[in-house]
Amino acid sequence: MADSIESSTDVLIIGAGPSGLMAAYWMARCGIDARVIDKRGIKIFRGHADGLRSRTLELLDSMGVAQRVLQEGHELFSMSSWAPDENGKLSRQGSAELEITPPYVMVALNQGRIERFLLDTIEESSNLEVERGVIAESLHYDEGPESDSQAYPNHAQEQGRHGRDAESQVCNWCDGAHSWTREQLNIPFEGSTTDHVWGVIDIVPITDYPDIRRPCSVNSVSGIVLIIPREKNTVRFYVPLQEEHEFSRDFDRSAVTLESIHQRVKKIMSPFHFDYHVCKWWTVYQVGRRIAQTNAKGRIYLAGDAVHTHSPKIGMGMNMRMQDGFNIGWKVALVVKGLARSSILDTYKSEHYPLAEMLLEFDRQWSAFFLHREQQSGHPAPVLKEKLAAMRDVMRETEHFSQGHTSYYKASPLVCKVSKAVAKHLSPGEKLLPVARSDGRFRILLLAGDMRSKEQASRVWTCGDILAGLLKQFTPAKYKLDLAIDVKAFHSAPFEDVELDMFPSIVHHFDKDEGCDLTKVWSDSKCNWGQQSDGNAGALIAMRPDQYIGWMGELEGAADLTSYFHGIFVERKVRPAL
Amino acid sequence: MADSIESSTDVLIIGAGPSGLMAAYWMARCGIDARVIDKRGIKIFRGHADGLRSRTLELLDSMGVAQRVLQEGHELFSMSSWAPDENGKLSRQGSAELEITPPYVMVALNQGRIERFLLDTIEESSNLEVERGVIAESLHYDEGPESDSQAYPNHAQEQGRHGRDAESQVCNWCDGAHSWTREQLNIPFEGSTTDHVWGVIDIVPITDYPDIRRPCSVNSVSGIVLIIPREKNTVRFYVPLQEEHEFSRDFDRSAVTLESIHQRVKKIMSPFHFDYHVCKWWTVYQVGRRIAQTNAKGRIYLAGDAVHTHSPKIGMGMNMRMQDGFNIGWKVALVVKGLARSSILDTYKSEHYPLAEMLLEFDRQWSAFFLHREQQSGHPAPVLKEKLAAMRDVMRETEHFSQGHTSYYKASPLVCKVSKAVAKHLSPGEKLLPVARSDGRFRILLLAGDMRSKEQASRVWTCGDILAGLLKQFTPAKYKLDLAIDVKAFHSAPFEDVELDMFPSIVHHFDKDEGCDLTKVWSDSKCNWGQQSDGNAGALIAMRPDQYIGWMGELEGAADLTSYFHGIFVERKVRPAL
Repeated sequence: MADSIESSTDVLIIGAGPSGLMAAYWMARCGIDARVIDKRGIKIFRGHADGLRSRTLELLDSMGVAQRVLQEGHELFSMSSWAPDENGKLSRQGSAELEITPPYVMVALNQGRIERFLLDTIEESSNLEVERGVIAESLHYDEGPESDSQAYPNHAQEQGRHGRDAESQVCNWCDGAHSWTREQLNIPFEGSTTDHVWGVIDIVPITDYPDIRRPCSVNSVSGIVLIIPREKNTVRFYVPLQEEHEFSRDFDRSAVTLESIHQRVKKIMSPFHFDYHVCKWWTVYQVGRRIAQTNAKGRIYLAGDAVHTHSPKIGMGMNMRMQDGFNIGWKVALVVKGLARSSILDTYKSEHYPLAEMLLEFDRQWSAFFLHREQQSGHPAPVLKEKLAAMRDVMRETEHFSQGHTSYYKASPLVCKVSKAVAKHLSPGEKLLPVARSDGRFRILLLAGDMRSKEQASRVWTCGDILAGLLKQFTPAKYKLDLAIDVKAFHSAPFEDVELDMFPSIVHHFDKDEGCDLTKVWSDSKCNWGQQSDGNAGALIAMRPDQYIGWMGELEGAADLTSYFHGIFVERKVRPAL
Repeated sequence: MADSIESSTDVLIIGAGPSGLMAAYWMARCGIDARVIDKRGIKIFRGHADGLRSRTLELLDSMGVAQRVLQEGHELFSMSSWAPDENGKLSRQGSAELEITPPYVMVALNQGRIERFLLDTIEESSNLEVERGVIAESLHYDEGPESDSQAYPNHAQEQGRHGRDAESQVCNWCDGAHSWTREQLNIPFEGSTTDHVWGVIDIVPITDYPDIRRPCSVNSVSGIVLIIPREKNTVRFYVPLQEEHEFSRDFDRSAVTLESIHQRVKKIMSPFHFDYHVCKWWTVYQVGRRIAQTNAKGRIYLAGDAVHTHSPKIGMGMNMRMQDGFNIGWKVALVVKGLARSSILDTYKSEHYPLAEMLLEFDRQWSAFFLHREQQSGHPAPVLKEKLAAMRDVMRETEHFSQGHTSYYKASPLVCKVSKAVAKHLSPGEKLLPVARSDGRFRILLLAGDMRSKEQASRVWTCGDILAGLLKQFTPAKYKLDLAIDVKAFHSAPFEDVELDMFPSIVHHFDKDEGCDLTKVWSDSKCNWGQQSDGNAGALIAMRPDQYIGWMGELEGAADLTSYFHGIFVERKVRPAL
């Protein structure tokens, strides 16, 4: 190594893909000393993943970048199935709306642009930069200092542009499917590379196929192709490259050319015209469905493709990778900042790993439709109809999962499941719509009900006193009380009828340098938080920095809420009253 | 002049404010050879205008920049009125929702950012750049070549960074209230500078006044202040600076300081706390309500403040200026391109001038509330209530006007008023919601009804044949048929039930290099154009490039529609059939 400099950093993120950048976002927002290295010399510009589920758009909205995605991306509404009809003519068999979580939508946009937006927002709130062309060379993990949150148990040595040694408190590893880190840690990567080889092309198609701007599966007698339209008239085609007799380990991937993929798609799409002048990207891949035996070792955490790989056809990959980085990032940031207990880091495993397993199971089901072609030879109409129905079922189930409705988190120090269900449609471990920017703080939603009632106002004031005590317990001296936990009140009366000073001062404290923070009291005439609680009784909800519900209860439950935060935050000496 | 170079350009735009940039947008989109010069050495960054009505946001959306405005701007929902109550305590007297045109909203964002977005979109589609620090020195207008659309009747000589002479076919002049151009053309500027002096400050206020993030008028015994909140916690305060006895021509504007404005606002806002650390911009102005006697001379057109000036308190100024540039720009572009007849340029005067007059009338009414303070001294409650009601009435009326509902254009070659009202809620001369990007083309909306009916399909095909003939008449040979007029079909059946080839080929022509343009046929399951027509009869609507309705009629009225376009476009030799 020509040039070796010892360097220390609190967090080292290896890999600047969607996982790594989501984790880096939290470091930037929380002001954590971090390094992000990537072995690639330049960022990617084309190809790779492209599907963003509405729940991912929700995350991006809380990070302030959803508008850019909507502006550039192609919105996906429905998925069509095409197959030969009774006369053998390729025709639309059906169309199903894609499931979304309003007000968010599903969008296709290439990964390079998404990474650009993440990089821009990281840059807006920090000096953090991705160090490209830097390769980790060796990794040493010291188990001794693990319990000491201020010590540096990890030691990584790097080579490349910067060439220096780095010691770090916590590492995130998002270095992809061939994860060097996972190998260094001797974490087994289970599963197998299947025999099935796929071609992918991103082109601007010249075609008279009418559904070219909608996601489709086309099952013709010549094979199957999956079509995903994208920004700027680009369309991606996924196509299995082997005839049935070719399913063997001997298939020569290197012999595949862009032209051979083109011809194969052309044959399947016939009698529609299918050509192109512009190809933006193409690749050949072999489906690898694998999962690492664990996603963590000591204070080293694996995320994204380093933990799980699967076929890219279900439009989940980038979403899951971003979700991984989003989940681990804020936890690491709060621990490194000295605010939260290091024990919350363990929840990454319990929250992320079951999702990765479900993802692979869905991939297994979905891929089967594309690979078992022998079942559909000749395409007799009843068999085909059955298959399309089965595909729709799996897609519906996958979407339900991907949208996060059933993927809520289990009980942990971060999710108190026994808390009382006081608000309609809400449940601890589920995600809420973002109420404000993702800035690393927990939020307490004080659903106040109708403050025009003196009795209700009195309950809210009592609750407010306890919340003020709670904030003081967990906020280091000399910092603003809302450093770690931000209280927001939502009331149900028209805004004109309820004034700020009718609320406890915790939500309208006047600061002589900054005035009142007016983002803390809301009337639900323009939103619907207050309406979520039963009648006008009001409720309390603790929302984690990633918008998942951690705890919920009645206004009188503020003491229980304090216990919840005891499991998360480091307690401070109680400060004198303000 | 140190360095004088003769240069020719088709269009010269003097002034790169909102008017000039809107006009420049059209030159960029239509590929017109144009120059934009501005006497300022750098673009503005702070202060100036800040209110965007929802109809202006609609224009910006059709230009692709609305998302950026929404991302950065502060949304304005309602306007509150504050005044002393019976006990003399300053309190909220009422609140009225601001009128908007869904899905658009009203937004406050400083002019510098709006100009940045316009500059960016101009740059995206052209090499057009604003030449800054360039001052026009002399202007010579040659009346001879006016009728010859290829001659250069204008000759301007400039001084500055570039220092060269410019001959231009058409000039737009948007060089502001002290318009050098208007003076050169000897166009009288009528009206007067009133005696009333106002202060304006853009600050980040430190206050416990609860409506600080909402537009308000505060009428206290010490005076009146108008509050307009904006992006990034900035708030603008407008305040009359004179006591009643000071209303005289002798008032010394130069004696006004930021601190004196601050103290005046503080007194009016009392007992609320009012302070600031950050002042982003401030100015003092004297209300000037003036209008130029005409907005055109030969092929020279005045726009924005060069035509009309008024007090900035009604949140109309920037909107009107942008509207001016948007109105004249596409007309100039189409004429210079050789597609449209030069006679359409005359409609700028008939469409713009009445609006400028209405604007001034509203300003007169609105300003009265702020200036006749003698009527409200002591603020007896009934008088105050009456005044607030009157203010609301004027505001409502102003908004109605500003939103464009009553400002539709009169009959002209561009607006055929006698055309049959075949679509609900629509009328020629009114604006439609944008159906696609503003790219300088007229659009024919073919509301097709239910194409599953054979009878209806037959009507649509007959109409399609006539439309194909129409396009051929007005498109120069060697160009694509949709160069000047783009036909879009909207049908009322679910998209799965109606295939592209059920439509005339004019809306799904297959090009071997570009495939089908799939933006030409829409099902109204995701939009509501088809539903606008009466039942399933269908209709035809001609939409101008600025989204105003120019003509409407039945499907059988395509021949009348051809006459409409005869008044606008230069006819071509009919080409052989495709």
